[in-house]
Amino acid sequence: MIIIGEKISVIAKKVREAMEARDPKPIQDLALAQWKAGAYFIDVNIGPAEDNGEDLMKWMCESIQEVVQAPLCLDTTNVSALRAGLEVHNNEWGRALVNSTSNDPERFPILDLAAEFNAELIALTVGKGGLPADAEERCGIAAEIMARAMEAGLPMEDIYLDPLILQVCTTQDQAMHSIKAIEMFQELNDPPMKTVVGLSNISNGVPKNMRSLIDRTYAVLLMNAGLTSAIANPLDKEMMDTIKTTEVFMNKTLYADSYLEM
Amino acid sequence: MIIIGEKISVIAKKVREAMEARDPKPIQDLALAQWKAGAYFIDVNIGPAEDNGEDLMKWMCESIQEVVQAPLCLDTTNVSALRAGLEVHNNEWGRALVNSTSNDPERFPILDLAAEFNAELIALTVGKGGLPADAEERCGIAAEIMARAMEAGLPMEDIYLDPLILQVCTTQDQAMHSIKAIEMFQELNDPPMKTVVGLSNISNGVPKNMRSLIDRTYAVLLMNAGLTSAIANPLDKEMMDTIKTTEVFMNKTLYADSYLEM
Repeated sequence: MIIIGEKISVIAKKVREAMEARDPKPIQDLALAQWKAGAYFIDVNIGPAEDNGEDLMKWMCESIQEVVQAPLCLDTTNVSALRAGLEVHNNEWGRALVNSTSNDPERFPILDLAAEFNAELIALTVGKGGLPADAEERCGIAAEIMARAMEAGLPMEDIYLDPLILQVCTTQDQAMHSIKAIEMFQELNDPPMKTVVGLSNISNGVPKNMRSLIDRTYAVLLMNAGLTSAIANPLDKEMMDTIKTTEVFMNKTLYADSYLEM
Repeated sequence: MIIIGEKISVIAKKVREAMEARDPKPIQDLALAQWKAGAYFIDVNIGPAEDNGEDLMKWMCESIQEVVQAPLCLDTTNVSALRAGLEVHNNEWGRALVNSTSNDPERFPILDLAAEFNAELIALTVGKGGLPADAEERCGIAAEIMARAMEAGLPMEDIYLDPLILQVCTTQDQAMHSIKAIEMFQELNDPPMKTVVGLSNISNGVPKNMRSLIDRTYAVLLMNAGLTSAIANPLDKEMMDTIKTTEVFMNKTLYADSYLEM
């Protein structure tokens, strides 16, 4: 499974302060730690970044790719900040991933931007209205986004469909709907569509000491449904161990006594 | 999921010594601890017990049911020891489970014994020959055992089909065959057949510190396939927490912040 390391986010106080002070060290340390722990993409979540978003995203991308040879997942609703990031992104280390478009017209330009820069794209299967009720509704939205991507010349294999994971503590039945959506998304194209989730959304609102358990157990079920990638915390060793073990059962990794160290 | 507590086994030195000395305390302590941790059945594995098997099984059953109000899983190949256990088993606390019949003619009398005592029965889907190659072969064997049970008057709902879990470290691809067998077994009857596994078989031969991780990750996949019950270690808190969390995702437990304490 492809891990998109989630730790560099404006939500974390330490990261936010480093962003404001333009202090690269804490951000670079987090990037390096996640990369070493097995993240393929490093997520760069700068939030809405309404003031100086372009400058901030550019600085973030350059600072991070100075220390890790990894592609980035550019995570903001600010379209011009995304453009600034894509302009400086070092594609030698893999193509950038843009997070995210959706079925909300405000997010349409993000799809065009991904096509323009030959980047990969996360497509959240939500519209402007309320949350999708079930897997079928998510598939309907996915089909609309895919049609728009085709028009824009963005290949289907560059899209990661995201069913939107909701918190289990208040919307328990949605957990299975999202797993079913992961299964159904793959059927929308041949070769199968890629999929992604924001894994830790599942444990939002639960007692902190239970979050990792809930995240990693849900990860097994999602992987079993065919999940391609997850925005997750690669520094959570128990979660990474669980993911690696699931890959052994799915015959994607050959068993060796040392498989957890790979 | 129904947990069959596996700790009272002749394989454990402490248990073996207590059996030999007819010292009930260590055995009763293990029974009580497993019962409190959520085991429904307490497994009583006395091994082949060729000498004095009847007396040993009788003493074990009586000693254990003196301290826990739980039904027992009588686990030996010694038919007369099984009979002795069934004769003293206290059915007030649930019907006994007999472990196990199979497609080996030497194990046929065990099926008749379960029918005679109105006990439940584990049916291992192996024959006298080699190990089953895949899920389909396991289903063929299951069908033969079910036909024999029908003749003996043992109801289908009293049988737990066991696909036989093999160790992942040497027979990696069998892990998925067994999961598929759990899915297919349920289709053999309406209402669906019950299923059971010897969970820790999956991690036989792997480094000891990885066993619980491998067991509990496999448990999630088995439960997702519809597994009814497992012979497992209820004192492994991480495994029990994982099982409880999976039950939340499968909507079998209503989420509450305290669900791990239930």
